[in-house]
Amino acid sequence: MKRKIYKILAISKQSGDPSWYFDIFIISLIFLNIVAIILESVAPLKHKYQEQFFLFEVFSVVIFTVEYLLRLWTANLEPKFSQPIVGRIKFAFSPLAMIDLLAILPFFLPFLGVDLRLLRMLRMFRIFRLFKIARYLKALKLMKRVLDKKKEELMISLIFTIFLLLMASTLMYYIENEAQPENFSSIPETMWWGIATLTTVGYGDIYPITGYGQFLGGVIAIIGIGLFALPTGILAAGFSEEISSGERKAESCPTCAQQLKK
Amino acid sequence: MKRKIYKILAISKQSGDPSWYFDIFIISLIFLNIVAIILESVAPLKHKYQEQFFLFEVFSVVIFTVEYLLRLWTANLEPKFSQPIVGRIKFAFSPLAMIDLLAILPFFLPFLGVDLRLLRMLRMFRIFRLFKIARYLKALKLMKRVLDKKKEELMISLIFTIFLLLMASTLMYYIENEAQPENFSSIPETMWWGIATLTTVGYGDIYPITGYGQFLGGVIAIIGIGLFALPTGILAAGFSEEISSGERKAESCPTCAQQLKK
Amino acid sequence: MKRKIYKILAISKQSGDPSWYFDIFIISLIFLNIVAIILESVAPLKHKYQEQFFLFEVFSVVIFTVEYLLRLWTANLEPKFSQPIVGRIKFAFSPLAMIDLLAILPFFLPFLGVDLRLLRMLRMFRIFRLFKIARYLKALKLMKRVLDKKKEELMISLIFTIFLLLMASTLMYYIENEAQPENFSSIPETMWWGIATLTTVGYGDIYPITGYGQFLGGVIAIIGIGLFALPTGILAAGFSEEISSGERKAESCPTCAQQLKK
Amino acid sequence: MKRKIYKILAISKQSGDPSWYFDIFIISLIFLNIVAIILESVAPLKHKYQEQFFLFEVFSVVIFTVEYLLRLWTANLEPKFSQPIVGRIKFAFSPLAMIDLLAILPFFLPFLGVDLRLLRMLRMFRIFRLFKIARYLKALKLMKRVLDKKKEELMISLIFTIFLLLMASTLMYYIENEAQPENFSSIPETMWWGIATLTTVGYGDIYPITGYGQFLGGVIAIIGIGLFALPTGILAAGFSEEISSGERKAESCPTCAQQLKK
Repeated sequence: MKRKIYKILAISKQSGDPSWYFDIFIISLIFLNIVAIILESVAPLKHKYQEQFFLFEVFSVVIFTVEYLLRLWTANLEPKFSQPIVGRIKFAFSPLAMIDLLAILPFFLPFLGVDLRLLRMLRMFRIFRLFKIARYLKALKLMKRVLDKKKEELMISLIFTIFLLLMASTLMYYIENEAQPENFSSIPETMWWGIATLTTVGYGDIYPITGYGQFLGGVIAIIGIGLFALPTGILAAGFSEEISSGERKAESCPTCAQQLKK
Repeated sequence: MKRKIYKILAISKQSGDPSWYFDIFIISLIFLNIVAIILESVAPLKHKYQEQFFLFEVFSVVIFTVEYLLRLWTANLEPKFSQPIVGRIKFAFSPLAMIDLLAILPFFLPFLGVDLRLLRMLRMFRIFRLFKIARYLKALKLMKRVLDKKKEELMISLIFTIFLLLMASTLMYYIENEAQPENFSSIPETMWWGIATLTTVGYGDIYPITGYGQFLGGVIAIIGIGLFALPTGILAAGFSEEISSGERKAESCPTCAQQLKK
Repeated sequence: MKRKIYKILAISKQSGDPSWYFDIFIISLIFLNIVAIILESVAPLKHKYQEQFFLFEVFSVVIFTVEYLLRLWTANLEPKFSQPIVGRIKFAFSPLAMIDLLAILPFFLPFLGVDLRLLRMLRMFRIFRLFKIARYLKALKLMKRVLDKKKEELMISLIFTIFLLLMASTLMYYIENEAQPENFSSIPETMWWGIATLTTVGYGDIYPITGYGQFLGGVIAIIGIGLFALPTGILAAGFSEEISSGERKAESCPTCAQQLKK
Repeated sequence: MKRKIYKILAISKQSGDPSWYFDIFIISLIFLNIVAIILESVAPLKHKYQEQFFLFEVFSVVIFTVEYLLRLWTANLEPKFSQPIVGRIKFAFSPLAMIDLLAILPFFLPFLGVDLRLLRMLRMFRIFRLFKIARYLKALKLMKRVLDKKKEELMISLIFTIFLLLMASTLMYYIENEAQPENFSSIPETMWWGIATLTTVGYGDIYPITGYGQFLGGVIAIIGIGLFALPTGILAAGFSEEISSGERKAESCPTCAQQLKK
């Protein structure tokens, strides 16, 4: 019985068996949840179908809760989590299990005496149900491998970005503050300009107007191009490497080897 | 006769023969059609040359219709579509034949009793005639090969983008809705901000003004850089691979091999 | 005498000889010209130093004209242009000679009876003197080689961009024209929006406001990311190739070769 | 004693020893300084905690000054700077020592009789303390190596950018000046538009409105895409090269070599 449930919960390897139908059902439910969250935000729809939205929410949470509890119960069938209690706690702290918990928690927290303001915020976190899809995206692994290998270089790119942001915003604040005391009122406020410029978004709600400010802004914008080039170059090298490492294993000078074996 | 027409319709391999002149004629006609569509949208020109535009449209559609029918008629001369009826239906559903049909359909649909509102929309789809050029762009194949090979990774990039867009828009909606109930009125409305930020377009018609909103917006904009880096890295690896795979075939340690053959 | 002048005009291979001083002089003069063009556009400076600007312009054009005539005279000392007349005409149509001519032409055209309106425009083309620097930028050659090799793929990227621009602008025109007849007044007008969106510039002077328009705009903006990825991927592969092709020549399995020679 | 201090100042290789605690202390102090600079710019915080900010500033500068003097004193223990006086001067001009000096200088300059206006600007340069972190970022070296190797190509990219900026701004000035004499008042002023367009920031405070201006703007924006592609392609090739050069050393046709050794 327990093993049967474990198999159904696991990702199906064959279309048509019960596990496959379960996967389809969960994936559909996740998508419907996302659609419901989006539609509920549209005021006229919310007022008209308030009850239906609530019922669907209760239905979804019940399903997801049962799914979570079953996964927790059957967790010790996996060799990694074989110990009855320690194994289950380990499982509960695995990324996928954490996501499953986060997907249902916003519903239960209000019962624990959370005030109304926080309640509104909790509704926001229902969107994290989207991450439950991650379990079913196999192709994500290839990408994860590249990102993992290059994580150090990507981290440095991020640190560069933050460095630049701090530098640019501090200098710009001292330059522009006098001319535009409202827009560039403090360094944290100026960082909003800094991000919009470094990422080349440029909303246009805040920009330098003095000569020095525009000069600094121009330099920062050009350096910003480098912020696109760095992670792109790193990832391009990462993907190339991943491919060629696979090819080299197969290759390693086969012609010579064959010729020599004779 | 039929074989002769088939040869003329096919892409010419030699400049100067009838098929070559036919290619030039069709390509010119496509370009003139695009120019006509663009010029017709300019109000003063439309009013002045209404008749000429209409006559050119009729002329083009007649030519394109005859071309389409002849292609359909001669389709079974290709080994792939050799069966008289099934082959022709197969041909009719091939991408290039579909484009040919789409290029003339907007003209004929009104006769089938389509109302005026839809009619206006149909005029819009005349721009799809542009795709008829695809048949003559040989260099497109190289690019198509790279895109085909990397289609799975590129798909994942797109899914990432949609994920991020949903996450960013939902969170931003809950954060900014109170401060700007008009601009961030619902999640679908907020997605317009989300796309403008993730793609770094940043029109500036809608942007966060609260502290939390600007912080989230900044994080999203920086993550948005990654959305440029991912497909670029994938394509860079794809192009490198395509080139080196060609080179390796020729190479495979030739020095050793030659030396050994002695 | 003629050979001496030819050597002075050629790019110096040794610092300190007359040719080297001549190079320095011409490069400095080009830079001063650019500075003068920029400063002359600042109204207060123009009024104050009108005479000086004019004198410097005359001085520069005299030098550049003498330089051009001497280059033309000594051209037939190069083996490529050895014939006295045909060779000189060939030289005159080489890119670098054309640039030299363009740099002085705007000054002389008014004497040939050009009207005042065109005169103003001619002043604009003085900026092309900047290209005279190209002769002295050796590192440009490496970059030119990569761009040359990949010119076909880059061309396709550009055709893609134009395709997308035409499609996006035509569809957007038909969708938004009714809601914003002033901003989206015609397809050419809408192309201004199209370029700002595809290149992710997003000035914010013109953007869709209808639901359908924003949906199309979002799709176009996301596809626009691909327009950055394509040329970048192509160039990344080109630079990689250029480097590895140099390395492979040196390599080609040296260990094996040496071992076998014994 | 001197050797002991030198070891403490050097980067720790082992967690838990005095040098390690010193590193942690300095890094923390740098971060607290950055936080203080940012918070001090927020008007209400500045007025409330003026005294505390000043005390922390004095405390930091004392620490950083003592650190700088000790580094200078112990510098001649490094073989590179072994000579007592010449070595120390050399050390003082090394990039890391310069940063250390810049981090404290803004505090001491006022005592040398600097006027109040400059004083305000000096406060701005306190942000350069951020660079003191560079000493502790080991991963920066890998990135520095790639940037160093490709510095010539990256330089050319920058020159391209400046070329384009000068060309675009000059042409745009002559085209748009008549229609918008306020926004495009001079070439330096127009360069602000040029940078916003080439880097795809597009604040939207200044943009062409005439037909010719929009056409030029569109061409410039599309060329601007290339400005992203160039450095990215260069860096991608650089990172690939760095990786494969490491791999090739290990490889160099090992199968053949081994086979032949038998």
